[in-house]
Order: sequence, then C-alpha cells, then structure tokens
Amino acid sequence: MYSKLAFLLSILSLHILTASASDPDPVQDFCIPNTELGSTTTTRFNLVTCKNPKEVSPEEFVFSGIKSPGNFSDTGLSAISVNPSVFPGLNTLGMSFVRADLKVGGINAPHFHPRATEIAYVVKGKVYSGFVDSTNRVFAKIIEQGEVMVFPRGVVHFQMNIGKSSATIFGSFNSQNPGTHRIPNIIFGSGINDELLEKAFGLTLEQISLIRRKFIFHKKQGKS
Amino acid sequence: MYSKLAFLLSILSLHILTASASDPDPVQDFCIPNTELGSTTTTRFNLVTCKNPKEVSPEEFVFSGIKSPGNFSDTGLSAISVNPSVFPGLNTLGMSFVRADLKVGGINAPHFHPRATEIAYVVKGKVYSGFVDSTNRVFAKIIEQGEVMVFPRGVVHFQMNIGKSSATIFGSFNSQNPGTHRIPNIIFGSGINDELLEKAFGLTLEQISLIRRKFIFHKKQGKS
Amino acid sequence: MYSKLAFLLSILSLHILTASASDPDPVQDFCIPNTELGSTTTTRFNLVTCKNPKEVSPEEFVFSGIKSPGNFSDTGLSAISVNPSVFPGLNTLGMSFVRADLKVGGINAPHFHPRATEIAYVVKGKVYSGFVDSTNRVFAKIIEQGEVMVFPRGVVHFQMNIGKSSATIFGSFNSQNPGTHRIPNIIFGSGINDELLEKAFGLTLEQISLIRRKFIFHKKQGKS
Amino acid sequence: MYSKLAFLLSILSLHILTASASDPDPVQDFCIPNTELGSTTTTRFNLVTCKNPKEVSPEEFVFSGIKSPGNFSDTGLSAISVNPSVFPGLNTLGMSFVRADLKVGGINAPHFHPRATEIAYVVKGKVYSGFVDSTNRVFAKIIEQGEVMVFPRGVVHFQMNIGKSSATIFGSFNSQNPGTHRIPNIIFGSGINDELLEKAFGLTLEQISLIRRKFIFHKKQGKS
Amino acid sequence: MYSKLAFLLSILSLHILTASASDPDPVQDFCIPNTELGSTTTTRFNLVTCKNPKEVSPEEFVFSGIKSPGNFSDTGLSAISVNPSVFPGLNTLGMSFVRADLKVGGINAPHFHPRATEIAYVVKGKVYSGFVDSTNRVFAKIIEQGEVMVFPRGVVHFQMNIGKSSATIFGSFNSQNPGTHRIPNIIFGSGINDELLEKAFGLTLEQISLIRRKFIFHKKQGKS
Amino acid sequence: MYSKLAFLLSILSLHILTASASDPDPVQDFCIPNTELGSTTTTRFNLVTCKNPKEVSPEEFVFSGIKSPGNFSDTGLSAISVNPSVFPGLNTLGMSFVRADLKVGGINAPHFHPRATEIAYVVKGKVYSGFVDSTNRVFAKIIEQGEVMVFPRGVVHFQMNIGKSSATIFGSFNSQNPGTHRIPNIIFGSGINDELLEKAFGLTLEQISLIRRKFIFHKKQGKS
Repeated sequence: MYSKLAFLLSILSLHILTASASDPDPVQDFCIPNTELGSTTTTRFNLVTCKNPKEVSPEEFVFSGIKSPGNFSDTGLSAISVNPSVFPGLNTLGMSFVRADLKVGGINAPHFHPRATEIAYVVKGKVYSGFVDSTNRVFAKIIEQGEVMVFPRGVVHFQMNIGKSSATIFGSFNSQNPGTHRIPNIIFGSGINDELLEKAFGLTLEQISLIRRKFIFHKKQGKS
Repeated sequence: MYSKLAFLLSILSLHILTASASDPDPVQDFCIPNTELGSTTTTRFNLVTCKNPKEVSPEEFVFSGIKSPGNFSDTGLSAISVNPSVFPGLNTLGMSFVRADLKVGGINAPHFHPRATEIAYVVKGKVYSGFVDSTNRVFAKIIEQGEVMVFPRGVVHFQMNIGKSSATIFGSFNSQNPGTHRIPNIIFGSGINDELLEKAFGLTLEQISLIRRKFIFHKKQGKS
Repeated sequence: MYSKLAFLLSILSLHILTASASDPDPVQDFCIPNTELGSTTTTRFNLVTCKNPKEVSPEEFVFSGIKSPGNFSDTGLSAISVNPSVFPGLNTLGMSFVRADLKVGGINAPHFHPRATEIAYVVKGKVYSGFVDSTNRVFAKIIEQGEVMVFPRGVVHFQMNIGKSSATIFGSFNSQNPGTHRIPNIIFGSGINDELLEKAFGLTLEQISLIRRKFIFHKKQGKS
Repeated sequence: MYSKLAFLLSILSLHILTASASDPDPVQDFCIPNTELGSTTTTRFNLVTCKNPKEVSPEEFVFSGIKSPGNFSDTGLSAISVNPSVFPGLNTLGMSFVRADLKVGGINAPHFHPRATEIAYVVKGKVYSGFVDSTNRVFAKIIEQGEVMVFPRGVVHFQMNIGKSSATIFGSFNSQNPGTHRIPNIIFGSGINDELLEKAFGLTLEQISLIRRKFIFHKKQGKS
Repeated sequence: MYSKLAFLLSILSLHILTASASDPDPVQDFCIPNTELGSTTTTRFNLVTCKNPKEVSPEEFVFSGIKSPGNFSDTGLSAISVNPSVFPGLNTLGMSFVRADLKVGGINAPHFHPRATEIAYVVKGKVYSGFVDSTNRVFAKIIEQGEVMVFPRGVVHFQMNIGKSSATIFGSFNSQNPGTHRIPNIIFGSGINDELLEKAFGLTLEQISLIRRKFIFHKKQGKS
Repeated sequence: MYSKLAFLLSILSLHILTASASDPDPVQDFCIPNTELGSTTTTRFNLVTCKNPKEVSPEEFVFSGIKSPGNFSDTGLSAISVNPSVFPGLNTLGMSFVRADLKVGGINAPHFHPRATEIAYVVKGKVYSGFVDSTNRVFAKIIEQGEVMVFPRGVVHFQMNIGKSSATIFGSFNSQNPGTHRIPNIIFGSGINDELLEKAFGLTLEQISLIRRKFIFHKKQGKS
C-alpha cells in the first residue's frame, strides 16, 4: 500500500509547479527540496517540498562537481549545467551556473537562454565569443583568461576556442533554470516541415536532408 | 491507513512552497496540467501537476472552441472566456483570451479586469467602446471591423453594439486569469448594506430594491 | 538657441529607457525626488530625478501630516492619501498609506485600488467594512478599534461608521500609487452613454439623470 | 534663457515616467508619450515623457492601421508590428500585437520573441503552425479560421500558408516590445565566423556562402 | 482504498495554488489556506491548498489579535508579527503587519527585513527611530503619536522608546513574509568563527565571549 | 550657454531613475549608457540615456579590469565590484559581479546584499565561508579551488582565507546593483545612539567607544 501512495505522492511532488507570484521573491531564506518524499530523478524542473530547515546542513549550499570538465561532444564542448536538479541549494534563489570547456578548435554552437542573462568568466584559454542582436548584428570579440563577457537574456550567442590549449569558462545565470535552445538542433534536428525550411533558408531538399542526417545520428547516439 | 496517508499529505501541504517568484517567468517552457491526477471540473483557478512533456501533443496548444458565439445573456452579450481551465495549454504562459459577441443593441456592462490589460480586436461589426480613468473621465469611441482598442489594466470599461448587425470581438489579456468584476452585479447583486448604497449613489431604498430585483432574478435563473 | 536645446532634449527623450525591470526592486536604497530641478505641484505621478543621497536628511523619511483628519466630503469621509507626491521619501519603495476618518454615519463609497492590497487598521471607532469578490459575494463585518481588515488588490470595498463617535482608519498599500476608482463617480459622474447605463442597471433615463445630477454638482463644486 | 530651459526641464522631470520596479505594474492608469518634446521617428524603443492626461483623447487608445495587409516580403509574409512606436496608447500597458498575412505558400520563417508569449488567432485561412521546445521536439498543427494557437515565450516558432487563399493572423503579446529574432537572418545574415558555422551546422564553406548570399542581398535591398 | 486516496489527491491538486510566475500577481482574488488537509502548526512559511471560496467567511479577512501587546523581551520589546501563519487571510496578498510595543527605555535592536519595506505608524508614544544606508550613514529622528516613518527594504533599522510612557507602533510590510534578521543575534548568537569576529569588529576573544554569553543565555531561555 | 545646458542635462541624465515595471524585463536587447550626454563620474547608480545601438561596439560587452586584485583593506580584503558604473554593458541586464581576493588570514567581514543572491566560485585558495539564516543558525564550510557556494539574497555572510596562500573568488549577482551593507561599519561606524547599542549588544559605553574608534579612524583614512 505504502508504495502506491508513495508513488502517487512522488509524481505529485515531482510535477507541482511554480507559485505565488504575489511576492516578487521567495518568501523564505531558502528551500532545499526534500528528496525523501519523492524521487527527483526526472530531468525536468519541478517544485518539490522543502526540507525542514533544521535538517539542512551547510554542505547543501556548496557544489563540488565542476572541479574538472565532463564528457566532450563531437564539436569539442563539455558543458556541466548546474541547477537545482543537481545542486538543490540553488532552489528558489534565482541563479544557476555552468562550467564549459572547449577543446582546441572546439565550439559552443549558436544557442540562447530564454530565461536568463549570462555572465561568462574565462577561467583559462582564449575564446572567440559573441552574440547577435535583433537587428542581426554580431557583437564578437576574442576574450582571454580573467576577462568577462555578458550575453543579454534571449540573444543567440556562441563561442569557439581559438587558442592553443583547452579553454574553461565559468558562466552564471540570473534564473534557476535558464533553458538552452540550440539553433542547429532546433532547426535541423526537430522535424520542422521540409518545404518551410527550404523557403526559410534557401536550401534545397537534398541539402536539408544532408544537414539533418547529422542531427538525427546524434540523437540516436544520445550525444548532442 | 487513513492516518498515514493524512500524515504524508500534511507534510506535503506544510512544506509545499511558494515557488521561485524571484524568477519573473515560468521556469520551464510550458506546463500542461495533468488532469488524470485530479479532476479539474471546478470553475476555480488552481495549480495542478504538469504532464510529462513527452506526453504532451501539439493539439494541446491549439484551441478550437471559439469558432461561433456561445449563449447570449439578456443584455445581448455572449462571452466565451478562454483560460487554462478550458485551454490547459495556456497554463503558466501569462496570457488568456475571450470571444465576445453582441447582438444588435447588446451591451457588455461596465466591468474591469483586476489582473490584465485587454487588447480588443473587432472581428466584425460596429461598437461603442470605452473606459473611465481614475479621474472619472470617459475615453469612448465607435470602433469598427479591423480596429483595435486597448483597455488598461484595472480600469472600468464597456461596449455596446451600435451597428445594424451582430458584432464579434477577440480580446486578449496579459494574465492567465484576468478576473472579471461586473459593476452592476457587484454593487446591486451582492448584498452590500442598503444604507451604504443609499448614501453612495443618492438612491432611495425603493430604487435600490427595484434595481436589485433584476440581479437577484438573474442570479436565480443562473443567467447573467 | 531653442533648437539646439530641443535637439538635445529630443535625443534625451528618444533614448531614455524603461529601466531595469529585470530587477524586481529599486536598484538603490532610496530615491528622494529632487524638486529643485522641476516643480512637483502636479497631482499626477511621475518619475523625477533623485537627490544626491548626501543631501537627504532624516526628516525626509518621516511624515507628520496625518495627526488630524482633513476636510470631510458630504458623505462624511475625510481621506488623506499619502504617496510620494506629498511624502517624497516613499518614492520607489513600493508602499504608501492613507488616513481615513468617518463621521457618525459617514461612508467610504464602494471603490477599488487597481494596483494594491490594503491593510486597514482601525485606530478608533466601529466600522461596517467589507468587499465583494468576483463571484459577487460580499465579505463584510463590523470591525472595531485595534482590529485589522485586509482588502485584496483590485476588489471593490467600502466602509460605513456605525458607531456613536467618529472613526479613524490607518490604511497601508503595497504600491507607491495604488490608484482609487470610486464606483459611483466612475459610473454616474463620467458621461458614459445613457442607453448603455439604462441597459446595464435596469434604470430609466430619468433615474439616471437624477443620480447623475448629484455627481455633476459635486464636480462643479470640486468636492468629491 | 535659463528660465525657458528650466521650464522645459521641469516639464521633462514632471512627466518622466513610472519607476519603482518594486511595483510590478505601471504606477498610473496609462502614459501617452508626449511627442512634442522630442521626435519619435526612431524605430528603437524608448521611454518618453507622458502627455498630461487631460490632453489625451479617446482616439489615442484606438488603432486603425491593420485593416489591410502591409507589403509582402519575398517569402510571402506581410507583418505589421504594432507597438508603442506606432500606437502610443500601448505605452507601459504590457501588451502589443501584430497583423500577419501570408500569401498562398508563404512562410513566416523560424523566429522567437525573447520577451513575450504569443496568442495567434487565425482571422482567415489555413496555416501549418508550430514551435520547437528545448528538447528539440516540434509541436506543429494545421490551424484554420477561428482557431487559436499559443507560442510560449522564447520558443522558436514558424508558420506556412498551406491553404488555397491568403491567410490572416492576429497575434497578441504580453510585452510592449516582444522583440523578434529571425533564425535564418541571425545565423546567416549576421557575419558569425565561418569556421564556427561550418562546425555547428556541418556545412561546407561553399554552402554557407551560398546561403549567406541570400541574406546579404536582402539586406542591401532592405527587404526582409 | 485507492479511491479515497485519489479523492484526497484530487482535492489537493485542484486547490494547490496560484502558479504562473509570469503573472506578477496572484491569479485569483484570495486564497485562504485549507487547514483541514494538513495541520499548520509549524512556524515555517509554506504554501498550502486553498479553501473553496464558498466556504470562506468574512471573519477570515479580519484579525483581532493585536488589541493589546504580547510578552515583552528583556530589551523591553513586544512584537506580534502577523503573517499568514496566524492570519490566513493574508495568504498570497503580498502584505503583512506587526504590532510592536516598547516599555519606557525599551529598544527594538538593529535588524532588517530582507523581503519588505516597512511603514511604521506611531499609535502612541515617543520613539527614537532610524536606519542606516549602504554608505553607513544614520537617518534617525524622534517620532511621536500620529507620525509615520518609512524603512526601505533591506536596510538595518532600530527603535528606542525615549518617552515617559510605553509606546505602540503599527508596522506594515509589502511582503507576506518580510523576514527579520536581528544583527546582535546573527553576529553573536550564531556561532560564527571567533577569529573572524575578532578581525571584523576589533574585539578581543574575551570581549566576544562576554557578548556571546548574553545571547546563548537568551537562547536557552527561549526569550529573545 | 551650451555648458550650462549640458550641465543641467548631465544632472538630469545622472539622476533619472528606474522605470516601466509593467514589462517584467528590459524592453530592448541592451542599453549602453550614453556618456556623452552627461558625465557619469558619480558613484551613485542611475539610469542614463542609451547609445544608439549602431554605435555600440563589441568591446562594450567585455570587461578586462579584474585580471589582477585591487588594493587591499587592512582586513586583508581586495574587492573589485563590477556594475554598470564601471562596465556599462551590464546596464538593464539584471546581473553584476565581483572579484574578491583575500590575503593569508584575511577576512571579508559579515555583510549582506539586499538586492541579490550571490554565486561565489573559488578561483584559487581555501576559504572558510558561510552565512547566517533568520533563525540565527550558521551554515559555514571550508571551500576550495573549483568549488561554488551560494549565499541567498539578503542573508548575512562572510569569508576568511584559512589557506597558506592568497585566495581569489569570482562572485556573481542577480541584480545590476546588489548593494553591500557591512555589519561592523553599519553598527559601529554610523553613529547610532550609544544607549541603544549598549542595550542591543550588552556592551558598556567604553567598549562601544573602543570599537567605534576603529571605524571612525577608517572613515577618515577613506580606507574600508
């Protein structure tokens, strides 16, 4: 009996959502999700119950998982996104962060975050980095260790390691779940109608199929 | 058994938390309420659990229920309010809409939406349309097919079909639940103390009773 | 000369910008408007320049103008609204307040504040006090000295002194400019089309004219 | 001289608008920009001074400029965006709208609005319409006259007229300046580094040049 | 069994509250927490389910518990904080309040509210009252019955009764849970590393121990 | 003449403030302040006019001024706060950042940011780091290179270098002007009434004078 109940409650706690927008801020100091009352293995973002603050330990506000890079994609990017699903202490605090590493020549393909501005601090390396505004103008520059670039909320931006060694970037966001929409995958890896893409990009059907193959392959391999 | 369940639920209700209002937006792309986990036949607005996005279909973002007018009230108005209770795809997206039809001579009585500005697009017809600002000044104008009028959030506004055929308006709101407070019903259909109304409107008790009868009648008939 | 000035001003007005609404709060501790750079005798709310904080004195955060009631209207109400136009220290802080006094039998006619919840604390007296929700239900109660009633944002509310001496209420708001829309004046003192009012309230043209006379008279006398 | 200047400045300071980001709404009913104090011919969005409300006419809250389509681009789209720069009455009210017309076979290329959800109401025609979420899944459907589709804030969406006659859509937004970022133009019409695009899309340099030519040509002609 | 469980869950999911942080306000008129579905004896703030509005009585919007002072601390302060945990009618409305009484010579030690501005109205007495801004400048003044002082959100403020009789203050806040961080307790009653405190305040270890004893004592007695 | 005009305008542009909170975000991609229309040498935060976006260069979104530490205070702290006054590209984007360096044994005294959560990334070193919540409980931990600690908005926090070499921290904030209120300076460097401090901290007048001397001395030297 208990397990059925627990199962239902876990679904409930996993999916209960968002909240009292009448206060423009959280109405408590912090909220560490209580994982005992429902598993949180889903990759989706959800509001869960808070732990009793007396049972919260200092460790829950410290994250140690970005001391080294993660796995690299075949464009030479490793990105470890740190949000409340891996660092519960961030929950309700309005911020999250990412460690991005780029191999020599590696790229972070054009993408945007619908819910956050990004502050990108170069920990190491030399990176061509930029964004495009709504008038289709590029603002790009080579930035180096100790420099910081800001990407305004919702603009398409990108990076490429043009140095002679790997590069590391620490990015932080003003949302606990900024979201990442990658342009190549969204356009060519999603199944938008062929004719529409032909007309939009001036590509032939063959060219579109060729580009798509890359993303479908990726999808199957669970890579990108 | 019940008590264990109640215990778990009490923990849940105690700690469920007023989500991250420090993010000024939803923290996910969308949230289709999961009606399997609880019926939503209530007319009241509530937060429910989200469906797993993989089980969401494109149909859930399309609404087909305003192709024709609804039932008309005896002031000649048909208003179909479309919010997440009838179109779940709107949930958490900060918008909702209405189709309003007015018979020849029909009116949309003075009312206001406490939680939204309204953009009213005239699909068909000729409508006297206006609002009153906080200095008690009327801004009213006759608007016709293809024209748009804006009613600022929280101001009392109204419409009357002065054309020779029925009129149709498509209104949209910047809240998922704008709320509608109708002045005649709120003042004369609610049971505010007689003496206070006499003094506020300079009406006699008889006049107030007369006006009230109309609204009580309506109430009984479930019309207005 | 004028044209150069106009040119500069035009640049200024073209590019002045709708400040950081991405921060849900003011971006400084406070902002005392600088009245030397422009008179502020207007009753309308506007953003002005801030004083240099070094020239701000403690007095600017204290308001002494509600120690006694103001002038009474002929419904027996005196209301002193205190917002940044009379108490500049409130500017940008998201709150304002009011002292309301009611003579014996006096009323505060049905009205609503589109931009704020109100906390009404009874300093003295006995007051019938209530509001109407969007289902046209009245929530009213007699409250006495030391009691507090809350009126949710955007709902129509009202008060009447039913005690044997005058009453005093201290109300506070969670907006620096809550706005006040008085129903009798908005409906009958504003010039909304006669036919629409007849249909909305079930009144005859004569009755409407009668009620209106009261408000037009007020307007001329500059009273209400 | 000084006094005239001071006079102009005082008007400016009196009417510069709004403020207090701690209030989640405008702190007045509306704000019609005062164009006499500076031309507003710029296409860029800016906050200007407000007109004295007594000088505001009802006409300023009505827009008559979308009764017929505008000029069509060579993808068969005509889009008339209506925001405060063309309809000043919208200023500070948190909404704007668009009339979009599509020729037979015409497309509205993939784009996103960083600052608003869109409610798209089909006034006429038959349109393949959809969006892609952050997991690269397409939600697309054919919608017809009288149907409504919602595009969540910040997701890439698109439309194509698949009917046998032209189509008309009335879209409304919950921001006074939603912003439009068109993917083809942002990626291939902006000048992002060639090598980065090659790697991101798996295209050859020749293919990229080919695609780009289209957009550069457009740019020169001032079309798209 | 399952059906009873499902029934309870369905109530829960129907009434769990509010949502849509993209709406800057609650999406209903009010939400009285439903205490039958879970005890709320915790002192911690949480979102609970809403009562069916039809079962809400007018009494739930009135608070009668601050007619007299509460218990006094040994600094001569009695503070009754009124938020949704004791006055459920405030839930989701963005405001709360406090009654503070000071014995002759009593103090309200330096503290700040991270989530609200405070409007302090002197009901009775004579109080030295002030705050310190981020440039370490004090804004302090003696205020008396009928006067109002405003403390901007997040600034450290304090009060001392310098009159010859007890003083009473009615404070209101623009958050339903402003939070109170008391500087003496946070610094000397919390267990921050000794060496850090020595260096920060220029105190010796002995002095720190002496000051700390006071707060540890208090803690044990459950007083301050 | 021009200079007087320019002077007035510069005051105006320096002090014009904040804005349209009706959109919960900036209503444009970015806004680089136009310093030609008024000097911005003030240390105070203000809204200025935006540059024409066509005249904005990529450099304006890159900051190179934190490659090395700044001057150290006598508590062994060097903090370079980077907000729009030194990095105009941040203006309106809702974020800012800081580089903090601590000498061996150096401390960052207890302080809080009223307007932002902080994400602190340890670039180098070993730091005792913590915060105190509103129940006066310390959450402190030693963190090392590559680790991240989060300090919730408005809580008092502190750091001390307990390693054998200097430490470097990169902190980012979700406000363009988080504000910094340092407890020792606010309490003992501001001039709060002696008697109140005696009672609040249980210190003698002599002890208070002793502690104060330190801060007054600092003030004169313009150090801390």
